[in-house]
Amino acid sequence: MSGFRAAVARLEPLDAGAMERARARNARLTKPAGSLGHLEEVGVHLAGIARSCPPPIPARPAVAVFAADHGVAASGVTPWPQEVTAQMVANFVRGGAAINAIARQVGAAVHVVDVGVAGPLDGLAGVRDHKVRRGTDDIALGPAMNAGEALAALDVGSQVAHTLVAQGADLLVTGEMGIGNTTPSAALVAALTGCPPVQVTGRGTGIDDAMLARKIDVVTAAVERARQHPEPLAVLAEVGGLELAALAGFVAGAAAQRVPVVVDGVIACAALLAAEALAPGVAAHALAGHRSVEPAASVVLDRLGMRPLLDLELRLGEGTGACLAVPIVQAAARVLTEMATFDDL
Amino acid sequence: MSGFRAAVARLEPLDAGAMERARARNARLTKPAGSLGHLEEVGVHLAGIARSCPPPIPARPAVAVFAADHGVAASGVTPWPQEVTAQMVANFVRGGAAINAIARQVGAAVHVVDVGVAGPLDGLAGVRDHKVRRGTDDIALGPAMNAGEALAALDVGSQVAHTLVAQGADLLVTGEMGIGNTTPSAALVAALTGCPPVQVTGRGTGIDDAMLARKIDVVTAAVERARQHPEPLAVLAEVGGLELAALAGFVAGAAAQRVPVVVDGVIACAALLAAEALAPGVAAHALAGHRSVEPAASVVLDRLGMRPLLDLELRLGEGTGACLAVPIVQAAARVLTEMATFDDL
Repeated sequence: MSGFRAAVARLEPLDAGAMERARARNARLTKPAGSLGHLEEVGVHLAGIARSCPPPIPARPAVAVFAADHGVAASGVTPWPQEVTAQMVANFVRGGAAINAIARQVGAAVHVVDVGVAGPLDGLAGVRDHKVRRGTDDIALGPAMNAGEALAALDVGSQVAHTLVAQGADLLVTGEMGIGNTTPSAALVAALTGCPPVQVTGRGTGIDDAMLARKIDVVTAAVERARQHPEPLAVLAEVGGLELAALAGFVAGAAAQRVPVVVDGVIACAALLAAEALAPGVAAHALAGHRSVEPAASVVLDRLGMRPLLDLELRLGEGTGACLAVPIVQAAARVLTEMATFDDL
Repeated sequence: MSGFRAAVARLEPLDAGAMERARARNARLTKPAGSLGHLEEVGVHLAGIARSCPPPIPARPAVAVFAADHGVAASGVTPWPQEVTAQMVANFVRGGAAINAIARQVGAAVHVVDVGVAGPLDGLAGVRDHKVRRGTDDIALGPAMNAGEALAALDVGSQVAHTLVAQGADLLVTGEMGIGNTTPSAALVAALTGCPPVQVTGRGTGIDDAMLARKIDVVTAAVERARQHPEPLAVLAEVGGLELAALAGFVAGAAAQRVPVVVDGVIACAALLAAEALAPGVAAHALAGHRSVEPAASVVLDRLGMRPLLDLELRLGEGTGACLAVPIVQAAARVLTEMATFDDL
């Protein structure tokens, strides 16, 4: 059985009893009832995921940055050459990228996973080699990959989640890198929600009007093909990406282990939506780190009923927004654990 | 010369050159231009405050929690008895309050300052005794205090900012405790902005409709008296509070030392507005930690053109929202300092 399917088989719902105990505890803490707003809800959510109240305070957050390439980068949807993916992977392992700086600030470890970078990484030290294939095919023209490859990438993500937790990580954070990957993300969200491509396709890293029009055309064509497939795995293979599939596996792997996972921007949101389609119940174990400016991210957050912790107009990806939210998640657990109650006073 | 007035005399504008260098550096970092959104603007702001690019990464944040009582608590504007202020001060020094849990999470030191608690604190260890008087008088009936007392409280705040920075703090965070203090905060904001009391008066820790109506009446009466005073110091004395004045002095003291200060919710926003009225230019050195649900907070943020880092529907105060934003401020400086540039790749 694939690691992803094994993870899905272990999924359980949130523990309603632990959540009720967390709500009751929130009400006894030395503060006006409800005055910590969304932070209280996060604490309740963490109790439900951990099946205990108070939930453990995450002390070892870990970001997994899944890197992969996209054939669609050749179809005029991004100004960045595909080689930048491999260059950024090198930047990640050298510690010079935004995710490295932010992860250092919040005390999170960064794990870089090659799930499908096109170019050779020349055995770059510090990269976990789980390459499924050298990038996807161009979704402007046909399927990104086949279902077996999509499942292999799902397995990579699930396996990475298991490995990180086995190594002591107690809060997982989604990260990714892949030139062109807002295009398959938009296609995936449109295909899985039925939203019109024009509504979910954004400017990514900052493209002009002409390139945006081209991107919408590409997404539209991809979504039309995806409509032929009733199965979420087939949709993921048709219009998705290798890091998208890995991220879907990663959130499922976290959920199966009852470890909270903070999702980043539009790529992670699209992957979470795919994970929820493949395995209903996964998304209940995820927290939205922030609201990306990409429109598809908000479509997913609304669809899944998730409220993001931050809204800083980020559109970088890599896991940056999710990582910035880590201290808030930790604080939510800490408040429930360490605050005095009115009985104590 | 009072410490507050000495601080104000040292105020300088933000360093436009350092801000320009930060903008230029942001554009060379290994990310799409502008993709870190508001975080980039925070980095530019920090450069302007520190007069250097990259700005130092704050490593020793410190929260000052100014505690004081309010005569208006007797006028039916809060369900909490005044004694809770002293009880919460004891909770702060024992480490059991929300601000303690959150400060521990972000590595911030908590300093508790008695600037006007009504009841005796019995020499409670860990409280800095800077009591100006035992609470204010009831602003439903007359002035909260006289101008000399308001200036003394401003001096306390400014002195605490200087002491903390001398002790190594490199990022200051505003905190406060005072049963009833959303009422003088609303009055101060209404008096200083001209906004109608009904627009700036909120439910504080969660009052019912009848108490809210009473609170609006009290604010209205206080603001009518405040209109007689053209001087901001007289307004602060008429309708303010001792911790409000201390917070105004604290932000001015931070600004004078070019140390960034993160302001919390409605009490801190009202104090910042008063500080800006007393010493134009202070607010440029402050960052808004979060958007409190209290309406007066948003009125101040809009008036001062400040964009809050968080919006988690908090209404607790103590410095909790500002403290939660500390890692974001640190990350903004860290990104500017540690990220590679495209030249490096």
